[in-house]
Amino acid sequence: MIANFKTRIQHKIDTKTKPLGALGQLEDLALQIASIQQSENPTLKRPAILVFAADHGAATEGISAYPQEVTAQMVLNFLNDGAAINVFCNQNHINLEIIDAGVNYDFEPHTKLIHAKIAKATKNYLKEKAMSDAQLELCLQQGAKRTQIHQKLGTNIIGFGEMGIGNTASASLIMHGITQIPIENCIGSGTGLQGKALEHKVQILKKALEIHHTPQNPKDYLMTFGGFEIAQITGAMLEAYHQNMIILVDGFIATVAYLVATTYEAKIHNNAIFCHQSQEKGHAALLDYLNATPILNLNLRLGEGTGCALAYPIISSAVQFLNQMASFETAKVAQKLI
Amino acid sequence: MIANFKTRIQHKIDTKTKPLGALGQLEDLALQIASIQQSENPTLKRPAILVFAADHGAATEGISAYPQEVTAQMVLNFLNDGAAINVFCNQNHINLEIIDAGVNYDFEPHTKLIHAKIAKATKNYLKEKAMSDAQLELCLQQGAKRTQIHQKLGTNIIGFGEMGIGNTASASLIMHGITQIPIENCIGSGTGLQGKALEHKVQILKKALEIHHTPQNPKDYLMTFGGFEIAQITGAMLEAYHQNMIILVDGFIATVAYLVATTYEAKIHNNAIFCHQSQEKGHAALLDYLNATPILNLNLRLGEGTGCALAYPIISSAVQFLNQMASFETAKVAQKLI
Repeated sequence: MIANFKTRIQHKIDTKTKPLGALGQLEDLALQIASIQQSENPTLKRPAILVFAADHGAATEGISAYPQEVTAQMVLNFLNDGAAINVFCNQNHINLEIIDAGVNYDFEPHTKLIHAKIAKATKNYLKEKAMSDAQLELCLQQGAKRTQIHQKLGTNIIGFGEMGIGNTASASLIMHGITQIPIENCIGSGTGLQGKALEHKVQILKKALEIHHTPQNPKDYLMTFGGFEIAQITGAMLEAYHQNMIILVDGFIATVAYLVATTYEAKIHNNAIFCHQSQEKGHAALLDYLNATPILNLNLRLGEGTGCALAYPIISSAVQFLNQMASFETAKVAQKLI
Repeated sequence: MIANFKTRIQHKIDTKTKPLGALGQLEDLALQIASIQQSENPTLKRPAILVFAADHGAATEGISAYPQEVTAQMVLNFLNDGAAINVFCNQNHINLEIIDAGVNYDFEPHTKLIHAKIAKATKNYLKEKAMSDAQLELCLQQGAKRTQIHQKLGTNIIGFGEMGIGNTASASLIMHGITQIPIENCIGSGTGLQGKALEHKVQILKKALEIHHTPQNPKDYLMTFGGFEIAQITGAMLEAYHQNMIILVDGFIATVAYLVATTYEAKIHNNAIFCHQSQEKGHAALLDYLNATPILNLNLRLGEGTGCALAYPIISSAVQFLNQMASFETAKVAQKLI
């Protein structure tokens, strides 16, 4: 039955007025989206990007080029429509939601800001676990709740972004833990560390691994190294899979949240579209580990869900060619000779 | 003076609320477009894609997987809004124009079809030169005229596509002639030749090179191997450069037309944006020869200007972040620590 459906979609793609396979990756996307929706005429409805922000206890250890207060400042920038993700969502008519998953700041109430604060920053993983088991569960629930709300509003395609000074470090540690790829290959410059500052980050993260040398499972890695925004994204992605939505996977940190989600639901990859390959060291290896082919490779390393927002028009093109292009038969175009 | 302007734009890019360089290739595009327009607030106006169609005398030699009549049939498909380029232009609000540069068919008059027919197909280059000197000049003029018309209508960003059964063969021969890259590395499967059929194409093209072993210059290669659509695109691109427009370069064949244009105007690269890397063998080497970094790499091999249409939203994103993102100062976000 499923095989028959895929064959039917592939036939529809192959009889469009173009040489066989000539739309490359767009054809793979069209087949995937049609398969998710089990529809020959799939649609993208009310696209949404949810940006989860949180702070990290370890941010004081010199693992980022920017001070911790930038997390809160960037949240305010999101609310004031001034960040890259605002520009790209406005351009491509994507609904944008900003979630305080645990920022070290007391925000004034704001119509655009969702309060899902677990605490004002995780604990410092050089001293203890970043979060408790109860906090992790709360994160997964809060993330799921955000996805549910958008699903009820009509969204069937959803992307996730993050903001959190220090969060590439957490992502590197979790990636290493789950994939067993050597830690050096998982650590990159984040917001811009270079030379000795980058070496310092590597040393700090190695120390963190020594302190917590026996996390038991993927969930434990997430709990040990944080952060709240990564855990909430994992929860939000899992719910998007349960609701059979199209899941847009952004850059390094979002892909690590996805990596954790795959350990809960192996088949989540059926619903995942990898929007871009980040310049952050580790992302290429992680995509390779996940056998994922990203749509864009523009040397971005910004997060915020910007890769999802930039890739969205391409994904829309894939759906539109499937629905709108003429077939050889209807257009009366001759088929292949040889 | 020019150096100062570029420094000013780079400063504007660098003080946006994002880590230095975090928008990767979008930053290069923003700098290039601002530089073309000599404006700190560049704009994209009335984007247009012009698709030139023509037939090739050599198409009867078995150099394509499709019969010659597909050129005319696809032109009718363009006019009926059924092709991939129609779908993507409609999606991204791009003006689309279809030009009969020399199709082997008598079209009924149609409001959307521009008549610029040089002849009903070029001559067969296995027997004689594809076109005369006078025909080449006419092609360059006709192409320039189309660009002028769009420029007067307000267009400042223009892309070019093509349709013509047999035209990857012409493009391969011209590429080899100008770049001196071995002919085998310039020949690909076009609309889908494989195995023995592809070997046959290689043999035919080698024979063509033996017959015409002494073209004198790039212009002569274009005249010898055609086609009318490639030559008209060269003329249209040159005019776009003279009008200081942004030039969108599509796939293999359009890039060969651009290659010829560079031999007339070396500085045309200042205005050129390379929209995608085609799967057609030869294109990667040609982009490398031109030192060009394409925006997309989606394994497309369709032509029609589809790569330009798909890349357009990304180019627009580059302009919009430059114009709309907040700076560290205006958003009160702290700068880098280290």
